[in-house]
Amino acid sequence: MDPQLVVVSNRGPVTFEETPTGERRYRRGVGGLVTALSGALRGRGGVWIASAMSDADRAIAAASETTEVDVGGAHIAVRFVGVEEDTYRAYYDDFSNRVLWFVHHYLWDPPRTPTFTDSDADAWDAYTDVNRRFAETTALKAPESGVALIQDYHLALVPHLLRKMRPDLAIGHFWHIPFAQPDYLGLLPDPWSRGVVEGLLGADVLGFQTDRWLQNFLSCVRSLEGLRARDRTISAGGHRTRANAYPIGVNPDHLAEIAGEPAVKRARTELKRWLGDRALVLRVDRTELSKNILRGLLAFELMLERRPELRRRVVHLALLQPSRRSVPEYREYIDQCTREAERINARFGPETIRLEISDDFPRSLAAYSLYDVLVVNPIFDGMNLVAREGPCLNRRGGVLVLSRNAGAAIELAPAALIVNPVDVDRTARAISDALDMPEAERHERARRLRRLARGRSPARWLDAQLRDLEKARGRG
Amino acid sequence: MDPQLVVVSNRGPVTFEETPTGERRYRRGVGGLVTALSGALRGRGGVWIASAMSDADRAIAAASETTEVDVGGAHIAVRFVGVEEDTYRAYYDDFSNRVLWFVHHYLWDPPRTPTFTDSDADAWDAYTDVNRRFAETTALKAPESGVALIQDYHLALVPHLLRKMRPDLAIGHFWHIPFAQPDYLGLLPDPWSRGVVEGLLGADVLGFQTDRWLQNFLSCVRSLEGLRARDRTISAGGHRTRANAYPIGVNPDHLAEIAGEPAVKRARTELKRWLGDRALVLRVDRTELSKNILRGLLAFELMLERRPELRRRVVHLALLQPSRRSVPEYREYIDQCTREAERINARFGPETIRLEISDDFPRSLAAYSLYDVLVVNPIFDGMNLVAREGPCLNRRGGVLVLSRNAGAAIELAPAALIVNPVDVDRTARAISDALDMPEAERHERARRLRRLARGRSPARWLDAQLRDLEKARGRG
Repeated sequence: MDPQLVVVSNRGPVTFEETPTGERRYRRGVGGLVTALSGALRGRGGVWIASAMSDADRAIAAASETTEVDVGGAHIAVRFVGVEEDTYRAYYDDFSNRVLWFVHHYLWDPPRTPTFTDSDADAWDAYTDVNRRFAETTALKAPESGVALIQDYHLALVPHLLRKMRPDLAIGHFWHIPFAQPDYLGLLPDPWSRGVVEGLLGADVLGFQTDRWLQNFLSCVRSLEGLRARDRTISAGGHRTRANAYPIGVNPDHLAEIAGEPAVKRARTELKRWLGDRALVLRVDRTELSKNILRGLLAFELMLERRPELRRRVVHLALLQPSRRSVPEYREYIDQCTREAERINARFGPETIRLEISDDFPRSLAAYSLYDVLVVNPIFDGMNLVAREGPCLNRRGGVLVLSRNAGAAIELAPAALIVNPVDVDRTARAISDALDMPEAERHERARRLRRLARGRSPARWLDAQLRDLEKARGRG
Repeated sequence: MDPQLVVVSNRGPVTFEETPTGERRYRRGVGGLVTALSGALRGRGGVWIASAMSDADRAIAAASETTEVDVGGAHIAVRFVGVEEDTYRAYYDDFSNRVLWFVHHYLWDPPRTPTFTDSDADAWDAYTDVNRRFAETTALKAPESGVALIQDYHLALVPHLLRKMRPDLAIGHFWHIPFAQPDYLGLLPDPWSRGVVEGLLGADVLGFQTDRWLQNFLSCVRSLEGLRARDRTISAGGHRTRANAYPIGVNPDHLAEIAGEPAVKRARTELKRWLGDRALVLRVDRTELSKNILRGLLAFELMLERRPELRRRVVHLALLQPSRRSVPEYREYIDQCTREAERINARFGPETIRLEISDDFPRSLAAYSLYDVLVVNPIFDGMNLVAREGPCLNRRGGVLVLSRNAGAAIELAPAALIVNPVDVDRTARAISDALDMPEAERHERARRLRRLARGRSPARWLDAQLRDLEKARGRG
């Protein structure tokens, strides 16, 4: 029989809220990852450990309860890790998102940032504290000889801590974002970079989105004294970790299903009316520095500057889901994007660029079906699922302009127009070329893209990891 | 008999100026490199190719004259490459210093810079144009079967171009600055990064300051299709390049000699009077983003914040030689440093920090003899000679606080206090520890530092390259 699972992630499958009458209800998280991991838990049984996000979650955590929830037909036992708000903010905003996310996406301005003073040391302490609490809760709830699936950069220290507490478990960790090269990772204080790397090496199987981030991780391992990496196997302190690439994908059937919902149809009608006969250059992103929204606007402007005949005949719609508004760098960046969009609209006409900052998934799905050009130009990105979702749902032979630094580029390159994300000149040319592309080529590329984009799924992603974890257990 | 040489560098050994009476005079450039290369030319004969810097230089270039000059007793034939001012600015400021220098020192702010639009394409064109002119002039003037010594990032394309024009030459190129890792170099448009790498691979022998930059270069080579690197030998287009590390040093005897000059003695008396019995925390740098002047100020401030008893008993003297004032990023950075120094002085008392922006080499040498702590904290630095010059001349058992990202750290680490340059907290602690260090340990470290700092010289640096070039010629 397959061993039972414990899934460990910062954000869980559901969030609870209390109704005015004191009843507890939960909302399901979106995304294919929740579906895949929930499906695995349904098949094998087990538990999901996650941060308490709401007051209701924290109340459940405080009572040390494990609650059962239903996620798409799967009955899942959820156990929340409750953390005081200050500690959570230091762990999540200050360390996970302002330090680890920044370093692995190359988002700093080294002449000025980072500086690492006392508040950063506090953030690291909070990070280690929360990781320790996750490891303890996991050690308490994980089924005997089970498989632990630990998710992402928020929980890099858990594998090492958990291995010491529960040597019976097979431990997997999946790193969803890019991994920086040693010069840049070396901007972190040594105890932090070494802590993260050695924390991850507590896993039996360590997953990355692509071979590129995996190779970067191996370079970082080799740059640390006392650690050895041979091929994809790393030896540290008598334990061996097998690193591998497991590219994640989307579930096209599920996408098609929700794209058929009335809210999406309404949004589509509305967007079509607004669009008229203008061509649509679309981006769909979180309001995120690494997504390169700013250069997307500048490239669109440069394209219109070079091609006056396209003015008022092409619009750029940027659908941005609000994210990390508590991080000052994010607020500044989005303000800057807004100002640039206004400046460009003042230059070329109102609604040349329409920048929408709101959480409206149905509208994004509707827009996917309508784009002529989809711009996915992240500075660095672990995988990027917009580059897969868009082609799955588009019906117009839309062209994908894709950053070479997105993990998705490795597989989608043959059917996309690949750009260097910081090269505004080339990005402008790519948008221009996409708009000019003959109908037959557009549709041929769109077909290939759709086929490539459908070739991966969260379920396949998970199965490959579980197989390798079984093998690791067999060796152990 | 040893083959004759041709030295090729952007800045030559001398600059001419015209006196009011129409006479031409020249001033010698400072630095150990000019001395070493001039010495080699004296021993073997040959010519030095360099950019015309002044109107008088340009007049000489326009007349296609080769002029003989005397550099420290060496008679050197100098040939200037004359370039129109606009082209020179695009080649030097816009491409060499704003693109290549920035990428190899990790100085960009990727969410916003670089952007690479039309003016950058023009800068690349100017860079290739000037490199071509250098290659042509070198091809014209290089002695039959001679040795070409090409210097630094300004002239990365010359080796490849020159090899095609003059296959009889043995070609060496020395890269004086760091070399970035592939993710970061990959921010450049492909034709530029590939152009630079393939340009360098025209050399028979390619030199770097340390093994770290050499390994980064090899990683970049491996990331480019069609290029292979095995160990330190790179094969490209039927030609083999041997890469190696040749750490440069200072000439301690020459330093001691100029430190004995009256101007230095006067500056020393003046500095001592100003200093009184306060301890001196010194930095000596060009006004350069990579030198990390700003975090040096912040670390000094944090140290005083933590140790109120040291206020007014320790001063921070920053001697900054003006550099690249035509580059806007540099002006902004230095303005910011000045404002921060004023803010800190307003907080802790006037002249807590003294920031001097002027070209006063005698004063720098005088200050070297007087420091209690020398802060050399570059974000990244090919070698850094201040870290060697200071200990050679210091007479107070001064402690060196040194960035681990300076090439000099590899050899000097055992006797210095090594810091992560972006870690203001640790830099503050290192300055604090240095000030507290017991007398005996200070002097013991200073002795070791002096010995280590004297262990390299420009002459040894050059000899090692010439030996490897002879071997390469033997193989060819």
